[in-house]
Amino acid sequence: MKYRLLSPGPTPVPERVLTAMANPIWHHRTPAFEATFQKCREGLQWLFQTQQEVLTLSCSGTGAFEAAYQSLLSPGDTVITVAGGKFGERWGNMAKAFGMNAVVVDCPWGEAISTDAVKAALDAHPDAKAVVCCASETSTGVRHPYEAIAALVKARPHTLMMVDAITALGVWDISPERDGIDVLVTGSQKALMLPPGLAFITLSDKAWAAADAAKNQRYYFDLKKERKNQKLNQTSYTPAVSLIEGLYESLKMMQEEGLPEMFARHARLAKATRAGVQALGLELFAKAPADSVTSVLQPATIKPDAVYKGLMQRANVTIAGGQDAVKGKIFRVAHLGYYDELDIITVLAATEIILRQEGYTAFTPGAGVGAASAILAEGFVKRERKATVGGAA
Amino acid sequence: MKYRLLSPGPTPVPERVLTAMANPIWHHRTPAFEATFQKCREGLQWLFQTQQEVLTLSCSGTGAFEAAYQSLLSPGDTVITVAGGKFGERWGNMAKAFGMNAVVVDCPWGEAISTDAVKAALDAHPDAKAVVCCASETSTGVRHPYEAIAALVKARPHTLMMVDAITALGVWDISPERDGIDVLVTGSQKALMLPPGLAFITLSDKAWAAADAAKNQRYYFDLKKERKNQKLNQTSYTPAVSLIEGLYESLKMMQEEGLPEMFARHARLAKATRAGVQALGLELFAKAPADSVTSVLQPATIKPDAVYKGLMQRANVTIAGGQDAVKGKIFRVAHLGYYDELDIITVLAATEIILRQEGYTAFTPGAGVGAASAILAEGFVKRERKATVGGAA
Repeated sequence: MKYRLLSPGPTPVPERVLTAMANPIWHHRTPAFEATFQKCREGLQWLFQTQQEVLTLSCSGTGAFEAAYQSLLSPGDTVITVAGGKFGERWGNMAKAFGMNAVVVDCPWGEAISTDAVKAALDAHPDAKAVVCCASETSTGVRHPYEAIAALVKARPHTLMMVDAITALGVWDISPERDGIDVLVTGSQKALMLPPGLAFITLSDKAWAAADAAKNQRYYFDLKKERKNQKLNQTSYTPAVSLIEGLYESLKMMQEEGLPEMFARHARLAKATRAGVQALGLELFAKAPADSVTSVLQPATIKPDAVYKGLMQRANVTIAGGQDAVKGKIFRVAHLGYYDELDIITVLAATEIILRQEGYTAFTPGAGVGAASAILAEGFVKRERKATVGGAA
Repeated sequence: MKYRLLSPGPTPVPERVLTAMANPIWHHRTPAFEATFQKCREGLQWLFQTQQEVLTLSCSGTGAFEAAYQSLLSPGDTVITVAGGKFGERWGNMAKAFGMNAVVVDCPWGEAISTDAVKAALDAHPDAKAVVCCASETSTGVRHPYEAIAALVKARPHTLMMVDAITALGVWDISPERDGIDVLVTGSQKALMLPPGLAFITLSDKAWAAADAAKNQRYYFDLKKERKNQKLNQTSYTPAVSLIEGLYESLKMMQEEGLPEMFARHARLAKATRAGVQALGLELFAKAPADSVTSVLQPATIKPDAVYKGLMQRANVTIAGGQDAVKGKIFRVAHLGYYDELDIITVLAATEIILRQEGYTAFTPGAGVGAASAILAEGFVKRERKATVGGAA
């Protein structure tokens, strides 16, 4: 069986991007690299729908979040974090690791946070320096109401709205200025269709002002220093140049597709996936599902992790299982980045076979694929690619 | 003119490694990735000549040094750092950024540090928690006497010997246990023949014991957490999987060549380069030259940076110029990683042409190439590659 990577990260990397990265390596202090990096900076501004500088860091998304904590905050600062999933919990743990006072607003895994609960935490901690929330909580497949939370934060001049958009940016319509997001982070191995190894972060003027007072220790992840260098098309330390060459190509591909078309594709694939698994009699785990990844409760009658492991072992397909609190209980089907309609059909068909092998037969064969097909049919045309603009559109 | 990357980092990446990295991406939580990562761990132990775990981090070499500072030391700790170049100075600045007391032992750029000066600093600061020294100071081309310094540190149970071997590991014979190095760091884009984006670090038992008492803030770069995960062939955060696939291939290539042969090649290329530039009437900048990069004083009669810029602009060759204190005054010819005899001939021939164009004519045409050729002749055979061992030899 061919290997098929259909996970929420790393996501599949397009052949065009793979071959771009196989070009001979060049030095980062050359006019040729600097020209490419400048085009990437422009392309990232287009993708992030922002006029702000978008900084490229050589690390995972977690590293970029660390950069924000180190560069914008101080020991003892109060930080309100939204839990309810592995990544939301991580941002609380990281705040504690940096000697900050983490006020964790929790909610059951699978549910979206209540905006009122965050408002109560803000009212109880008017000195909070930041509210941290995942746009898409990858571990549960939930979309949190970050826009509504951002609206609460906007009125507070000393509080920053920090959003983990690692599996959201590029999936649906996000703009930091419009949405009131002061710190917006994503990683390369998600909707950006790249291998892991790069992370991206953009900061509002309010966030940059906070940087002047920040006392957390920092060196490698000093965002002010990075901004100064990246405006000159350089980085503070040797960057992952082959991944940046891949970024140039993946930005071109995204521009050829267009942002509205990209967002519509993700929405369509997500809708079809949800319809497909529900047609098999399965229950969605996320009460407020994100368009990046669909999390599904396994039938109670089959073995823990049977779908995830069965797909891995018998179909050579990598999706995602459950993590931590829901380990073994859910499986997660991804549809962000380099995914198309037939990938969804593929993963649903394979899931049907695995479910049947595991003894879950409460569905008509083909029911999942059929339900998805009906939705996918409407967008099932070969889309013409737009001319490459190679920078901000 | 073809583009030729002949710099001390990024260094050229072999075609075999480039194509390995162009394979479809796989997920890091799969048996296939874990098997590759285990082979890489074994191969790194072979390359580092150590029984210790060698940890792989997704960052530049600077990030790996930060990991050591964060994971092994505490605010207020005294750290003795050897300056005398851009990178030695960086480790002092980084110590200050982490609230530590950096005792900087300086020496003129281009000279190796005096072991006695480090001994005096150790005697004056018996509470020092670490001595930090570059094995090869890339900015000056100097090899520091880190073995002699390590011998001083070994007797002190509360002091760690930290060595930046970013342009030394794989170039000459280094073994942490034998040489008394407690923390040994390198980066992917040097002798390891990979693009930038990964760094590697290995710690002695003495260093791991220090980790238990370390109070510096850390999260992304928590080495104890990494060790726990990497022993299970996993990483704490999503790793740069395509670069790890390249690492597997580059380790195979190094094992096919063999460590003694690799060290001998680097020594031969370095000797030839030094002879070549001296035959042009030029003076070596490094008083104790490392075998990784040859730094050369420009003739006083030509324009600042004329050789570096001339090679870049007219030969499409990237070498390295001078940085900071010696900006414009020196140029640096590299010979670490994927370099062979004909690369040295190429760069010397191009340098001769540029020097002549710039008005420096105090040499017979071909003198540099000739002097280098005479030395290269002895090792000028097509070497048979050994069978791949795919792990520790």
